[in-house]
This record gives sequence, C-alpha cells and structure tokens, in this order.
Amino acid sequence: MPLLVVGSVALDSIHTPFGETADALGGSAVYFSVAGSLLSPVKVVGVIGSDYPVGELDRLASRGIDWSGVERADGESFRWKGKYSYDLQSRETLETRLGVFASFRPKLPASWRSTKYLFLGNIDPELQLNVLEQMDDPRLVVCDTMNYWIQGKRADLLALLKRVDILLVNDSEARELSGNWNIHKAGRWILGQGPKRVVIKQGEYGALLIEPNRTFYVPAYPLEEVFDPTGAGDAFAGGFMGYLARVDSTAPEQLRRAMVYGSAMGSFAVEGFGIKGFDQVTFDAVQRRVQAFVDLTHVPSAEQLP
Amino acid sequence: MPLLVVGSVALDSIHTPFGETADALGGSAVYFSVAGSLLSPVKVVGVIGSDYPVGELDRLASRGIDWSGVERADGESFRWKGKYSYDLQSRETLETRLGVFASFRPKLPASWRSTKYLFLGNIDPELQLNVLEQMDDPRLVVCDTMNYWIQGKRADLLALLKRVDILLVNDSEARELSGNWNIHKAGRWILGQGPKRVVIKQGEYGALLIEPNRTFYVPAYPLEEVFDPTGAGDAFAGGFMGYLARVDSTAPEQLRRAMVYGSAMGSFAVEGFGIKGFDQVTFDAVQRRVQAFVDLTHVPSAEQLP
Repeated sequence: MPLLVVGSVALDSIHTPFGETADALGGSAVYFSVAGSLLSPVKVVGVIGSDYPVGELDRLASRGIDWSGVERADGESFRWKGKYSYDLQSRETLETRLGVFASFRPKLPASWRSTKYLFLGNIDPELQLNVLEQMDDPRLVVCDTMNYWIQGKRADLLALLKRVDILLVNDSEARELSGNWNIHKAGRWILGQGPKRVVIKQGEYGALLIEPNRTFYVPAYPLEEVFDPTGAGDAFAGGFMGYLARVDSTAPEQLRRAMVYGSAMGSFAVEGFGIKGFDQVTFDAVQRRVQAFVDLTHVPSAEQLP
Repeated sequence: MPLLVVGSVALDSIHTPFGETADALGGSAVYFSVAGSLLSPVKVVGVIGSDYPVGELDRLASRGIDWSGVERADGESFRWKGKYSYDLQSRETLETRLGVFASFRPKLPASWRSTKYLFLGNIDPELQLNVLEQMDDPRLVVCDTMNYWIQGKRADLLALLKRVDILLVNDSEARELSGNWNIHKAGRWILGQGPKRVVIKQGEYGALLIEPNRTFYVPAYPLEEVFDPTGAGDAFAGGFMGYLARVDSTAPEQLRRAMVYGSAMGSFAVEGFGIKGFDQVTFDAVQRRVQAFVDLTHVPSAEQLP
C-alpha cells in the first residue's frame, strides 16, 4: 500500500566531528521518504523554493517516491544549519531560514486523499489538522511534533492528538508535553489525550512503543561509528510506517515488527551524512539488519537450554 | 551451586525526593546477596565494625545467605551518605566513612576456596587480585570496579582484568577505563584486556552483554515509580550470577538469560529504599518479572503474523 507524508523538504548544512555538508537534501519528508520507500511507495506533500536541486529529487523518484505533491514556490527553500557536539549527544542550531516554508499551506492532490497510511511530519499542528481535514478516511494516522509547537501551539496540538492513532516523539518532547519526567508516566499521560499508542524515541538507547496495557522496547543498533544523527527520527518513522503499509495491517504484532523496521532505518540514517547512509541500502540489507535487531534482544527460552 | 561474593557490608544513609533512610543495611555484598540468594545460596566475605546491627544480617541468613565469612573488627562500620537529584539521574556523596573497611584484607574460609562462582565486588583491585590468589579454580569470575580505582589503581586493575571472565561495570566506568566514548568501542577495548565478555549497565536504559562477535541488549523494566537507585547494579550482579550458579552453566544462551535475571533484580532494587525492594520478592515473583522482560522485547516472527 502507498503511504503519504506531509513535511519539510529542506537543505541542510551539517557539521559533525567527522565532517560537514552544505545545502544537502534534508527535511522530515525527505528522510521519511528515503527510508519508507524501501518498503512501500511514498507520496510527498511539501514545498520547495526556486533554488532547490530538483534533479536530486528526481533521482530519488526511482526509489518509489512520488514528489508530484511538492509545490514549487518562488523564493528560497527551507534551510537549516546545525553543529553537533564532539560526542554527537547535543546539537546547536546555527541558522534556520524558513523561506517558502513560512507560508506553506499543504494541499493534497485529490487522488491522494484516499491514502490509507498518513504521516504528519513535524510542522505547525494547525497545518497538521488541516491535512487531516483533507483526508477521506485514513486507516492509520501517525504524527510527529517538536518542543517549539508544544510550547507555542499547545491547544492545536492537543486538538490534533484527539484525532491521531499514534504520536511519535522523542523523550524530551514526551517529557515536555506531559510534564512528567518519568518516560512511562509521560507515555501514559499522552495516551490519555487521544492516541491509542505512543512511540518514544530515545536516540542511542532505542525506542519504546507504549500501549494501554503493554510496552515494547527496541534498542538502538550497536554501532561503533555514528557519523550524523540528523534525520534518524524521520527515517525511523519512514521504516515504521513503510512496514505497516507494506503488510497493510495495524495488528499489535505487526506494530512490534514495525518498530524494528523503524529502528533499522534509524541505524542506516546515522551511518552516513544526510541521506547518504541509504545510498547502498537494499531491501535485502534491511531484512538482514532487522534480523540482527531480533537477535540483539533474543532471549532463548528455558526449554532450549542445555 | 553456591556462589561467593567479596565486597562491602555497609550502613547507608540515603536521601531521595521520595524519602530518606539512616544507617540502613547496604554495601555491594549486601545488595548482591539479597538478590542472588533468591536463586542460589550465597557466601559472603567482608568486614563489619562493632556497631553493625548483626541481628538484621542474621534475619537475612534465612534467605540462604552465609555471613560467616564476614569478619567483625573493632571500630566503626563503613558508612555512606548520599543524596539523589530530583529526577534520580545524579547523586552526590555527602559523606564516606570507611571505618574498619579501610584496613579490610579479605580472608577466605578454607572450605570456601573451591567455590565455582565468584563475584569480586567493587573494592581495591589489589584486594580483588589477592582474593583470586586464594581461590582454587573458580569456573566463573566476574568483577566490578569504579572510577576511583580506574583513576588511582589502573595497573592493578589491568592486571586483574587479565584474570577475570567478565567485567561488569556501568557505562561511565567503561568509558573512563577505555578512553572511548562510544560504548561499543569501549566494550571492544575491554575485551582486548582479557575478559571474555563485558557487561555494561546503563541505568534506566538497561544493560549490554558484549561478546567478541555478538551483543545482547536487555532494557530496564518500565517502572513508573523509582524510589531509590542505590544498589541496583549490585542486585543486577546478584541476579546475573545467582542464575548462572543455579543452572551451573556459562553457556552463551544461559548468559543471555542471566542478563534478564540480573535486570529483574535491578528492577526490584529500585522499587524500594535500600534492600526493602526485596522484602516481598519470592522466587515466583522473579520468574514472573523475567517473563515480563522477555515479553518487553519479544519480536513476533513473520510466520506468526496474520
């Protein structure tokens, strides 16, 4: 099944202890699509300026990404510039230039409104709500957000939460949104706001799927070299939803496997600068990494023991 | 099979946001024994002063803890006083009074030297080496250490590492010992110093078992209430070794299960002040929690899916 993502299509300039890039393809919709399209076709709604390297998007189209919902506006594309600390544990935003993204009003092509799997990338919750209004009857709606909206658009965000199936955030966002430092209490609080489930990403420590009566934990992949954490969360979302769309199911057991596919995509994302981590990644490579994840936490049952 | 622990038998005064205790039973050997004895009989080598509440140790003896290797010296018992931050993420040592522990020279009762499972709690690596000299031919030697010894007794610690099977430390210790920030590189470095395996505890994020060609990860238990992190690492060690001694095996698959038993004990430890978290814990309760841990990371295989 195809999936639909609404989010940013940006140009990132990233500095890490291991190198830097300037004006490289980035943004939530780009990371999401590059990862998600390894599992299911992805349709993207976003906006770019007249300066965007459209040829690079076209090259990615062959992976199964449909960019025809990306509006081309007059003006500069969204640019983000950031620098990571020596241990990649924190980052500083050096510059954010919204450009054409500032006046972005997502418009879904008519034929896309019946898409069953929708990911609302991290944009203004008012716009996320507006996208939902344009959809017919999606089977699964997952949304992301960030501290900026939690602080500045709390009412809209809470209105949105009543209408999404899964909120997918990182731990600091879950803590800020809920006012609970304990991550399990924070998750429980979020479930009380509407979503049936919440996925909490914990960076190098993995991710949690919190459900009303059950919790699932998938660790991060044991990488000895991490080059660039940018986009790992959106790549996770792409793998998570790409898997669910591929199997066309939201059954509890499938959600657990989707968490592993999400984590696998997050691990590829951090292995290279920008979206380069995905350059050599095939469907088979994804399957192998998923199996490695399964092995990483596999507890042999007592019966199997000598 | 019985196991032997050498470590501190102390009196802890702990302040957390949820309450405080004064002169409560603590120390690495106590936490280790209370947890480990749920699975295997534990023999303790340590030292206490003339002020120690011996009656409380005697009450614990019924759990299967043999305190007869704990020397009673003239003077004050080892006391530690600490205060945790509001989020339990950091703690400050307010006072350390070594007392009789300052001149502790472990002497193993003759009949204990043939014990097959040995845990060297966090004491001076010179003393840990000396304990090893007193042992006949242990099947499994696991040791702990801390930043104080990594900084002050590095040569002794490295000499010790050549002779132990498993080093069990927390992430900051692994980083400091190896000089590697990346925890997997740190683990790899430690394996190069002698141990066949390294267990790295990551507090609320769980624990890793790093082997030459494989890594196993067990998350922390999803607790909404954590009262007192003191002793969680030693309780982990008690569960880890208690399980291995119980099944009398160090087979790779058993080591994975031992990690889960260790994590289960760590989770009980933080649910109460001091050793109180273990008050109501039975063997059946341990088994139930181990099963909950297995479920926490269980990934359904594709064949089982609808």
